[in-house]
Amino acid sequence: MNALVLKTDTFQLENVITPTPQSNQALVKIHYAALNHRDQWIRDGQYAKIQLPAILGSDACGEVIAVAEQNNNHWIGKNVVINPNIDWGNNLHFQQKEYQILGMPSQGTLAEYIVVNIDRLCEKPNYLLDEQAAALPLAGMTAYNALFNKGNVQKHTNVLISGVGGGVAQFAFLFAIAVGANVFVTSSKQAVIDECKKLGAQDGANYTEKDAIKNMAKANGGFDVIIDSACGDGMNELIATLKPTGKFVFYGATRGLPKDLNMRAIFWNHLQLLGSTMGSDTDFKNMIALCNEYQIIPIIDKVFEFDKAVAAFDRMKDGNQFGKIIVKIQ
Amino acid sequence: MNALVLKTDTFQLENVITPTPQSNQALVKIHYAALNHRDQWIRDGQYAKIQLPAILGSDACGEVIAVAEQNNNHWIGKNVVINPNIDWGNNLHFQQKEYQILGMPSQGTLAEYIVVNIDRLCEKPNYLLDEQAAALPLAGMTAYNALFNKGNVQKHTNVLISGVGGGVAQFAFLFAIAVGANVFVTSSKQAVIDECKKLGAQDGANYTEKDAIKNMAKANGGFDVIIDSACGDGMNELIATLKPTGKFVFYGATRGLPKDLNMRAIFWNHLQLLGSTMGSDTDFKNMIALCNEYQIIPIIDKVFEFDKAVAAFDRMKDGNQFGKIIVKIQ
Repeated sequence: MNALVLKTDTFQLENVITPTPQSNQALVKIHYAALNHRDQWIRDGQYAKIQLPAILGSDACGEVIAVAEQNNNHWIGKNVVINPNIDWGNNLHFQQKEYQILGMPSQGTLAEYIVVNIDRLCEKPNYLLDEQAAALPLAGMTAYNALFNKGNVQKHTNVLISGVGGGVAQFAFLFAIAVGANVFVTSSKQAVIDECKKLGAQDGANYTEKDAIKNMAKANGGFDVIIDSACGDGMNELIATLKPTGKFVFYGATRGLPKDLNMRAIFWNHLQLLGSTMGSDTDFKNMIALCNEYQIIPIIDKVFEFDKAVAAFDRMKDGNQFGKIIVKIQ
Repeated sequence: MNALVLKTDTFQLENVITPTPQSNQALVKIHYAALNHRDQWIRDGQYAKIQLPAILGSDACGEVIAVAEQNNNHWIGKNVVINPNIDWGNNLHFQQKEYQILGMPSQGTLAEYIVVNIDRLCEKPNYLLDEQAAALPLAGMTAYNALFNKGNVQKHTNVLISGVGGGVAQFAFLFAIAVGANVFVTSSKQAVIDECKKLGAQDGANYTEKDAIKNMAKANGGFDVIIDSACGDGMNELIATLKPTGKFVFYGATRGLPKDLNMRAIFWNHLQLLGSTMGSDTDFKNMIALCNEYQIIPIIDKVFEFDKAVAAFDRMKDGNQFGKIIVKIQ
């Protein structure tokens, strides 16, 4: 099969051996894969425990074409998405030490075929196109955990999604809109803010403009919850927009570690800083169920042909995308 | 009456007019007052909205000697402690904007008499000496909120009380021991650690010794909850000792704001940083009830005569105390 193989500093689309399903496994023919920041970080060598060569990719939509056991035959021919968790463990609230994400060191989805355990298969939501369904798994699950388990976002919650252009952020945005929260966004791009307003955002602020976030917060009574993956020195500005007892939920720190985080504002206002990463298998199932219930359509930035997959990575690196970057495999 | 009056940069024990109880108020003859860091910070000009001259002091134990209305006569002759909250408001989880702490701008407890609203009176726990009861109010309430409402500390919770010599920290320590938590402490003084072990601590670490906290955590499976008021650059070391989903509860930042707080460790381990300050009137009542139930004896550092009250402040400033610093008024 063809696969995009990451070697030291370079990708190569090459022919590798197609894997064979073993006990309790299925072979999936991949139609579409989606990229995550994780993939780009691994490409850049900025990730823990990198093992090369590697086939990256945590997200896929495809068709089951073989299984190891007859009693799993009912999966054959089904369109599926793949749960990207490997060995999350039994605790709903955190991953065990053995936890891995699909793709590096295990074979990922940027290949024509993949073998996964049967219990990683999930029927593709019927209402979605294949390329839309491929966008869901890792980012959707991460957003679900941050938004609902950590943020407890519900109808009428005032929630700010910062940097809404990101892959996880867009799902946090779509899910929050779906459940009837009052959703606000930040972005550095007016076009993204405008698009979010069309999709149901109450308002948006350009975070490159001084006081824009503060003024939006003030006009709306402050936020109950902020969903963030940037951290960095912008944290103090965001924290200042939270209501007393408000929650700053974060699943990344793309802008680095904050200097002089205003701990006094945090304790005086009884604020909560809640870390989150990925989600349990239960979160994955609940996320898919939520999508089915509200017919949530993932925002797709662009679909790249498989032989242009490196350009897809470059687009992720540039950070100008709004929505998921998809690779059409076959 | 005699009162310790703080003027610009100087205390003066002087004769001031004894206040008179108005509607729904009581006049309390103060037997003992206790100091809090807040008082020393106000003395040093390091507090918001300082109004001078001021009579400081948030804690007192005394006797009700007059009330404004006959239907409050049953209070007369009763030994009481005073709830130091003024206008906390209706929300159990945070104070309203009008909230004040007893003592600056209102008259505080470092005076022979004080007038407070009847609903601020609380019968002194019978099992305590007056000087012990005077130690309870502000610090006990603050510890109660941090430990139980924020930290959810229960029987068998692994809880670390950092800087256990402090006024609030000692109550967090005593309350955690009372409810059957597995309690660990840090201090810069071996004598304090030894005393805490006698009082029921599982173990203690000298935070000036490299890796002492880390090793203690490792030997005990990590902490579920840390109760801290230091913050500063030691935070990363403390956070690293938390179990996944562990809580870092803090009610102060005496060591300043942290540089380069390790947000990645926080989100990867689903940690929670929970700010807390003071407590509601309900917390005050629950704290007193807890003390009565478990017959908790506050740790007293030293009792100063009223005419040596400035020396009491100096002791607070030096930071070598273990337990509450008390001033005998009359």
